[in-house]
Amino acid sequence: MLNLPSKVRICEVGLRDGLQNEQQIISTEDKIALMEDLVEAGFPVIEVGSFMHPKRMPQMADTDEVFKAIAAKYPNVELRALIPNLRGVQRAVDCGCKKVKLNVSASRMHNLKNLNRTPEETVAGFADCVAAARENNIEISGSISMPFGSPWEGEIPQDQIDAIIDAYIAVGITEISLSDTSGMGTPKMVNTMCEHVLKKYPQVSWWLHFHNTRGTAIANIFAAMQAGMTQFDSSIGGLGGCPFVPNAAGNISTEDVLNMLNECGVETGIDIKKAIAASRKLLEILSKGGDSYILKAGTNDDLIANMAEKEA
Amino acid sequence: MLNLPSKVRICEVGLRDGLQNEQQIISTEDKIALMEDLVEAGFPVIEVGSFMHPKRMPQMADTDEVFKAIAAKYPNVELRALIPNLRGVQRAVDCGCKKVKLNVSASRMHNLKNLNRTPEETVAGFADCVAAARENNIEISGSISMPFGSPWEGEIPQDQIDAIIDAYIAVGITEISLSDTSGMGTPKMVNTMCEHVLKKYPQVSWWLHFHNTRGTAIANIFAAMQAGMTQFDSSIGGLGGCPFVPNAAGNISTEDVLNMLNECGVETGIDIKKAIAASRKLLEILSKGGDSYILKAGTNDDLIANMAEKEA
Repeated sequence: MLNLPSKVRICEVGLRDGLQNEQQIISTEDKIALMEDLVEAGFPVIEVGSFMHPKRMPQMADTDEVFKAIAAKYPNVELRALIPNLRGVQRAVDCGCKKVKLNVSASRMHNLKNLNRTPEETVAGFADCVAAARENNIEISGSISMPFGSPWEGEIPQDQIDAIIDAYIAVGITEISLSDTSGMGTPKMVNTMCEHVLKKYPQVSWWLHFHNTRGTAIANIFAAMQAGMTQFDSSIGGLGGCPFVPNAAGNISTEDVLNMLNECGVETGIDIKKAIAASRKLLEILSKGGDSYILKAGTNDDLIANMAEKEA
Repeated sequence: MLNLPSKVRICEVGLRDGLQNEQQIISTEDKIALMEDLVEAGFPVIEVGSFMHPKRMPQMADTDEVFKAIAAKYPNVELRALIPNLRGVQRAVDCGCKKVKLNVSASRMHNLKNLNRTPEETVAGFADCVAAARENNIEISGSISMPFGSPWEGEIPQDQIDAIIDAYIAVGITEISLSDTSGMGTPKMVNTMCEHVLKKYPQVSWWLHFHNTRGTAIANIFAAMQAGMTQFDSSIGGLGGCPFVPNAAGNISTEDVLNMLNECGVETGIDIKKAIAASRKLLEILSKGGDSYILKAGTNDDLIANMAEKEA
């Protein structure tokens, strides 16, 4: 018998991780309309954008404006933004964003080469962000990218991952995302790491974020749930990319995740039909096809209904 | 801790299930060359073609010729063909094919409507095929399509599936494939059914065959392995189709399955690089892209090697 949770929380990241990988910059109005659709579909958590420097990431330059338009409107939805540093906390305060997320790479090699510091030293440097967030009553979380493998060193020893987690906990961050941005995760290693961190760090609220670069993301989610994980990111239309592999698939598509969860009897509180509609709307704005099986094939219920109609 | 097998057997079905869904008919010479590549890559089982009526399935009309060219050449590889009826056994005898596979749909509704008999009555009618195969020293197996859901009735009760299995065993067939041709399977139901049949029918040698129509096939394989299953079909380049959903994805791609298994430490005896080369060759012949993540992104090892080269 499989051990699956009865319900999970899904965070929709298409407006951040999806759009930041697109050449096209969509309008603030479109973003706000899509936010409305996502809230209406029932997403409990939405990653709205990021407070990177607008020159570095022009697709996210209007994140402040989007928050100003929606933050007060949806008090029951957790609306989060990615921040690079203290400046990000200040922008969050100014626009009414109540939840921010920091990021560090799990690659020791990459960090040492580029920043001359280890990942855990980088995280220790986030103490000022935590202090500023606390002062302003803003929730703060952290993510670790590439814990399941890095293009620089391949598999990363668990004790190096643990050192980064320890560093996050040391600065007072106990909500942590394991983000497989390189798409190197596979279900056995995911299950093993999830079991390990859940046991070693019971005080942490975990998120899992899988890119579908090598087609394993849905199995990774399944394996993570079996270890006891209950919070997952996904992206409508499968938007996003793998920063290290041009033209590779993006984040696992929200529709595909919702379909799998629904069919496995795992509750999300999200209306898959409305999620699919939001996905189609965004892909239409971008004039692209996306990477989503459910958008092409429909759900099992759709198939049964179509067959009944055809035979009637 | 996950319960995974230490090794599994993969049957390559691209030359049958893949090519029968293509408009283009590839040459017998190309098929024979591809067979050579697949054997060289280490596939222990290959589905070579089918003995359907050539008018009904012109893509498979040269299956006899392909067998004549290869059957004696690869005595250590299990080379199988799909047959519709007794005529198929006779064609197998004539061309040196030593293993055949019958098929029945799990949809009671579909069978009754079209054939005016239940699936188990259809299977009972295979007794003549079994007798003829035995006489000629040909191994015979059976498949059940759509056990994980049918477009006609949706979920099929387990006792109806069991009745079909009983019927196969009654005619003397104890190698059975559960074939998710409608792509409606999801990992929890797959795991549940696999556990059930493994326990109830210990005398049966099981195969699992997943189409990736709704993006769940890799998770289905993972869930089936956890139940104890060790034999899986897959198709190079993800060729194939969903007969009920135009333009939907096909069989799960062999490269993606091999990558997942390799990374999970499950042995197959197959060289993934050679499988990828065969896949590229077939897609080039067909002038199409296929549905395969690994063909686009490469393996984790490829990514690490590329990064090392870039930074050198």
